[in-house]
Amino acid sequence: MTPTITAFEQSPDRGRGLARDMRVRWALEEVGQPYHVRLLSFSALKQSEHRVRNPFGAIPTYEEGDLILFESGAIILHIAERHAGLLPVDENARARAIAWMFAALNTVEPPIFERSMLMILDRNKSWYEDRLAVLNERIQVKLGELSSHLGDAEWLDGAFSAGDLLMVTVLRRFSLGTDIGTFPNLAAYIARAEARPAYQRAFADQLAVFTASQPKT
Amino acid sequence: MTPTITAFEQSPDRGRGLARDMRVRWALEEVGQPYHVRLLSFSALKQSEHRVRNPFGAIPTYEEGDLILFESGAIILHIAERHAGLLPVDENARARAIAWMFAALNTVEPPIFERSMLMILDRNKSWYEDRLAVLNERIQVKLGELSSHLGDAEWLDGAFSAGDLLMVTVLRRFSLGTDIGTFPNLAAYIARAEARPAYQRAFADQLAVFTASQPKT
Repeated sequence: MTPTITAFEQSPDRGRGLARDMRVRWALEEVGQPYHVRLLSFSALKQSEHRVRNPFGAIPTYEEGDLILFESGAIILHIAERHAGLLPVDENARARAIAWMFAALNTVEPPIFERSMLMILDRNKSWYEDRLAVLNERIQVKLGELSSHLGDAEWLDGAFSAGDLLMVTVLRRFSLGTDIGTFPNLAAYIARAEARPAYQRAFADQLAVFTASQPKT
Repeated sequence: MTPTITAFEQSPDRGRGLARDMRVRWALEEVGQPYHVRLLSFSALKQSEHRVRNPFGAIPTYEEGDLILFESGAIILHIAERHAGLLPVDENARARAIAWMFAALNTVEPPIFERSMLMILDRNKSWYEDRLAVLNERIQVKLGELSSHLGDAEWLDGAFSAGDLLMVTVLRRFSLGTDIGTFPNLAAYIARAEARPAYQRAFADQLAVFTASQPKT
């Protein structure tokens, strides 16, 4: 059965692949699973029809027969459990890859997400620069720790996994528009992931939504 | 094999159960799995011996034979996959319970954690009140959405699961010291979870570390 995901009808990031449907598209491409996309307006997100899919009114969601899922991390884990290619077969390696999924979403993403919220919502506040410096410092610590762990390895723990997929989508939110050059191995890690054919297909598909929704000039 | 977890040698929350080892202790109690605890000082957390367990130098970690895991969410999922009691048997219900685990950690916890960081680190900043109001507003929206979903149900999706366990630990960080009374069903939900014998055993054990580490008066 072909699953259906939801995505923004109009991309708030102008197709740079920062919306969380990108992660799910990429995972589906990695495992070779075709999918449908239901595009939703911002107002449709908050209506009861979509709240059944996600009580918090966000994208992406995932529908497959009777199953309705929300949370990009949970959707990707569900895909990874049902297809080869996103989690190692060895039990311990599998558990560690899942640990990197949670590390991406619960340790690295929060300060990076806070920073992007600040830059969108609070740029005119008197405390903007002070607050930005606090978040930048917290992010630098996390990136330093991640960089030390990665060293000169290709991926976080052995072969490419769903942990790398989520970590790269999280890092891109920071690295787009901010120099991550103090951590050259992280810059190379992001570039290595972006070069994967599955990433490129997913990126092109989410970009096509933006270009299609742009008025003709 | 009896697993070993790590926890703070001196509890920064004075034994109120907010440190993330509480979640893992509670999960282990729910499934009846005994465990050892290795207590670490704040300086030991940042040393290379602990960075092998967790590259970000945080607690809790989980060691079981050759396996070393970090991230409370991943540890709890690992426990839930190997023991009955924390995830439903039905496949779709299991996937939804995992979605609630991610919702707790990636949707509800970030603004609540930001708020507690602010209250600890930035209380003397000129922008403290302004920033607190912003975070309170964001948290109220999430809690309202969670409350609407929960309604008069006992748990988030059918029987008690690892999703409820994580959500309650996240909500407690907010509700301790802040009136959650505008959402009486969430207050009752927290109380229902805290009344579970497994919760009470885990809470007593983490509190005992604090009382033992207090100087005698």
